[in-house]
Amino acid sequence: MDAQSLINEFELPFQLYDVLNTEQLCQHPKFAEHSRDTFDATIDTAKKIATDLFLPHNTVADKNEPQFDGKKVTMLNDVKVAFDAYRHSGFIAGRYDFDQGGMQLPETVMTAVAGYFMAANPSTTAYPFLTTAAINVLMHFANDEVKQAFVPRMLSGDFTGTMALTEPHAGSSLADIRTTATPHDDGTYRIRGSKIYISGGDHELAENIVHLVLAKVPGGPAGVKGISLFAVPKYRLDANGKPAERNDVHLAGLIHKLGYRGTTSTALSFGDANDCVGYLIGEVHFGLRYMFKMMNEARIAVGFGAAMIGYRGYQYSLAYAKDRLQGRVAPHLKPDDPAAAIIEHGDVKRMLLAQKAYSEGGMALCLYGSNLIDRINTCDDDTQKQALSELLDLLTPVLKAWPSEYGPKANDLGIQVLGGAGYTREYQAEQFWRDNRLNPIHEGTNGIQALDLTFRKLWQNQGLGLQVLQQEIARDLIAISTSQTAKLANKLQIYIEQLQPLLQHVGQTLSTPKAVTLSANAQALMTVFATIVMSWIWIRQASKAEQLLALTEDGAKQNFYRGKIQAAKYFIDWELPLIQRDIELLTTDNAVCHSMQPEWF
Amino acid sequence: MDAQSLINEFELPFQLYDVLNTEQLCQHPKFAEHSRDTFDATIDTAKKIATDLFLPHNTVADKNEPQFDGKKVTMLNDVKVAFDAYRHSGFIAGRYDFDQGGMQLPETVMTAVAGYFMAANPSTTAYPFLTTAAINVLMHFANDEVKQAFVPRMLSGDFTGTMALTEPHAGSSLADIRTTATPHDDGTYRIRGSKIYISGGDHELAENIVHLVLAKVPGGPAGVKGISLFAVPKYRLDANGKPAERNDVHLAGLIHKLGYRGTTSTALSFGDANDCVGYLIGEVHFGLRYMFKMMNEARIAVGFGAAMIGYRGYQYSLAYAKDRLQGRVAPHLKPDDPAAAIIEHGDVKRMLLAQKAYSEGGMALCLYGSNLIDRINTCDDDTQKQALSELLDLLTPVLKAWPSEYGPKANDLGIQVLGGAGYTREYQAEQFWRDNRLNPIHEGTNGIQALDLTFRKLWQNQGLGLQVLQQEIARDLIAISTSQTAKLANKLQIYIEQLQPLLQHVGQTLSTPKAVTLSANAQALMTVFATIVMSWIWIRQASKAEQLLALTEDGAKQNFYRGKIQAAKYFIDWELPLIQRDIELLTTDNAVCHSMQPEWF
Repeated sequence: MDAQSLINEFELPFQLYDVLNTEQLCQHPKFAEHSRDTFDATIDTAKKIATDLFLPHNTVADKNEPQFDGKKVTMLNDVKVAFDAYRHSGFIAGRYDFDQGGMQLPETVMTAVAGYFMAANPSTTAYPFLTTAAINVLMHFANDEVKQAFVPRMLSGDFTGTMALTEPHAGSSLADIRTTATPHDDGTYRIRGSKIYISGGDHELAENIVHLVLAKVPGGPAGVKGISLFAVPKYRLDANGKPAERNDVHLAGLIHKLGYRGTTSTALSFGDANDCVGYLIGEVHFGLRYMFKMMNEARIAVGFGAAMIGYRGYQYSLAYAKDRLQGRVAPHLKPDDPAAAIIEHGDVKRMLLAQKAYSEGGMALCLYGSNLIDRINTCDDDTQKQALSELLDLLTPVLKAWPSEYGPKANDLGIQVLGGAGYTREYQAEQFWRDNRLNPIHEGTNGIQALDLTFRKLWQNQGLGLQVLQQEIARDLIAISTSQTAKLANKLQIYIEQLQPLLQHVGQTLSTPKAVTLSANAQALMTVFATIVMSWIWIRQASKAEQLLALTEDGAKQNFYRGKIQAAKYFIDWELPLIQRDIELLTTDNAVCHSMQPEWF
Repeated sequence: MDAQSLINEFELPFQLYDVLNTEQLCQHPKFAEHSRDTFDATIDTAKKIATDLFLPHNTVADKNEPQFDGKKVTMLNDVKVAFDAYRHSGFIAGRYDFDQGGMQLPETVMTAVAGYFMAANPSTTAYPFLTTAAINVLMHFANDEVKQAFVPRMLSGDFTGTMALTEPHAGSSLADIRTTATPHDDGTYRIRGSKIYISGGDHELAENIVHLVLAKVPGGPAGVKGISLFAVPKYRLDANGKPAERNDVHLAGLIHKLGYRGTTSTALSFGDANDCVGYLIGEVHFGLRYMFKMMNEARIAVGFGAAMIGYRGYQYSLAYAKDRLQGRVAPHLKPDDPAAAIIEHGDVKRMLLAQKAYSEGGMALCLYGSNLIDRINTCDDDTQKQALSELLDLLTPVLKAWPSEYGPKANDLGIQVLGGAGYTREYQAEQFWRDNRLNPIHEGTNGIQALDLTFRKLWQNQGLGLQVLQQEIARDLIAISTSQTAKLANKLQIYIEQLQPLLQHVGQTLSTPKAVTLSANAQALMTVFATIVMSWIWIRQASKAEQLLALTEDGAKQNFYRGKIQAAKYFIDWELPLIQRDIELLTTDNAVCHSMQPEWF
């Protein structure tokens, strides 16, 4: 594939400026020093670094994963070169204010930036991205001393960050973690315990690694209420803030993954010698609340990454389908007629169009989510700000789960388009598929996202988020002025009208004994809700594309807009009607999965 | 996982004797010397060899794939040990008559035998299975001389076989192959050309390898009508029929695959030195017809293998879910309540039940298909034999495509049940997923199966196959005497009633300009048709299980029957209704995929 075409040249401008109106943010004082020009220049820089330094070793790193010799982790030098280029570009601090050393860029623009890096090389991208996530937590919740010690060095990429939540025995059940943090006379804590699946948990890319560790201070309440958060550096800092002696945190071993092989995944031991210093972040017992407050961004990032890996697989199989000659299409069916490019075959078109709908849909969804964060950050009306925050909370499980369900589906279709070639490691389709398989699992499995939606987010604050969503959708549908999109909106309306009574039914079920069926049927509710959201996301794109199609005479742009409209049609005709099944299951409190007994398997 | 539990102990007896009544075949002279005891003894032998010699190196072989040093292919010695045990067991010749040196066993029993090997180690199993497939062709179509030269040595496993169809430039489009076969004075041919993705195309497991090669004799008609079939040995035979000098066929290279790594996949060069001897099989220009006549069995084998890899992943994740403690379930939700096994969580039950429905459903479907072959082979009424043959032809694309679509889905859910562990190579869930990804691609991609169904099989011989299928389904539904199954049958009936007008509509569309939409919508028709077939397959199982449940007091068997009924309920409530979408697409001649233009992507 042509490296230049990591992302179709029309895609991000269309999403950012036509659909989301990102320029409007510049009217707010926070972004007043920016303009479309500075946004575009930022994205162009990302494109260049991603294309030149991240893309070339994506597959090389997959085939040469990091090694641990018992002392040190080694990996391809290309990773270090790419990481350094990223940190010197200032992207780690991109979203922070000028006075914090940042570029004060909107979340929407930083998500577009992320798009190029995720498409090019998700494994190498993980190192700076995890650092940004850790900075986010420290910025918001750490006291000044801790913040001062770590954040500036992390913003520059001299130090990297991790999130050390999961423990071997507890998995997703954070209430059951056993890592302890014992108060020490000097105000610090001594950490002791084991963590697993810690991405970026060891490497030599930076001078230091700052682990954000969930642990329990002895004597605290049981369960999630007794969890606190600590900053635990790999190297302790000397009087000048420079990394000095080793802290008592050690790499117990590297985990060998199915994909995402360029990112170290680690088992870490804290306090084997009882001498692991940790710094409390915020207040004791508030640890999980801090982590959850940061989860909206982290979950959007996972969803967007899944969409981008899906998109890369789509572009890769698209290039193959245009190039590969095989078989014939009507009316040229004679044996001596020349072979057709496989993109001409109906079933290949179907597989490519589905990939387009899944991956561009996921991108559009997550850019909408990022833009929502910008709208919240620039909202000067407290009521409106609260309403938008509720909307973001409600959408977060969808932002994480939908793209991470459908991105991998795109990659699966990408393999199928390549046929036998897709099954070989000589082509990259299989790597995208393996890499993306992580996304339905980490940052809260998709099953957990469905439970979060079903039992919490839909009803939070008297369902305010849902009301705001319905207003946003209604506003968009009413504004549709173009004929093809109007037809799609009419089809969606039929399902929207079923959503209200369905949710009423589910809400009522929650207070009856039948509520137990919902833990087995939560995925069905996620499917209904997310598919309606995605239909709206596609209609927003189609509506704008249809408007612009009428205004341009540029053939390439016309093709791009026609493709958008067609993908929206695909989504409304081929994906949306599938939720009728789920509506039926939920309306009838289907108990088949719930009543299955372990001993019957 | 306990090695003994490769297949649930009740599964095969239930399928073979309760659902399919395989013992009845012994009333026919062909199987008169057999009984349930000899069938069971055969299957037990398979279980033992599979468990002792195939299973232990399944993952080892994945991590140590065959190597080519430019002269010879080397692989784990365990593969040779397993292959030898298989051939000495007589299974290669299992389905052939006693006077052919076989065990004269029904296809149904040989499929059950295959089940153990596919579940244990699909890669090593490929070598003997490909040999059986090649024997099948030679037995039916080769003249006596060629048959005599190769078949006895292949039945004993001294020689192995391959199918050499695909060429690099042509892929699925066999009409376009370029390999030539030039007649030689001695009645043999000289073969020249390149083949790719030839499984088992080189190795040192046997004394010789017999490639069945599609090639064109110069001067013949263009396209598929000019294709002939040749037997091309790796070593030529001396006057005593022993392998002697090398034939001019050479390994151009090994292909490195995503999964199925224990099976060599090869690029082969024929006649680089213009001295590759091939023996014509049957008559000139009939090659493709011969291959297609053998495809029913080969496609069932692929479908069944996909179901078995799916089943293995299901059993593996089931064992993990019973063992792994994490989180809590109502009413024990307090932090100090003990953690529950994850199989108690509703969403995990859902994922396990779906896996059960997909994998056991695929097994039951393919065992039905194998049994159909036995019914054909033992049918003494020509009209009835013809009718059953048409049914088999009609079902063949479903037998290949449905399990190879849903077996991998089961493996995907298997990973998800394991969560983070499922993404590591320390667990086997990911290998099953990678291995099974081949099945939607080879032996005719699933896209090609959908075209075969849509444009050919449904209408072949005035739709006789479809009539026979409808009779078989109607007979089963009418015979249902149990209450839970009767409810499921009523739900299926609603869709069956939609099938007839739908097929009438599609049939009419075929002769109109709208027929072009069908090449993009063939997958939708496959989904409708296959899901109705699978619903019937599940209702057959539930009906029998419900009958037997009332008759037994054995708690373990009761659990097994209840699980079957529950899986049938899952299939009818959760999978069947999804086809409403496809019925709608087909009824309205949806043109979204067809009308997508390459330049709009």
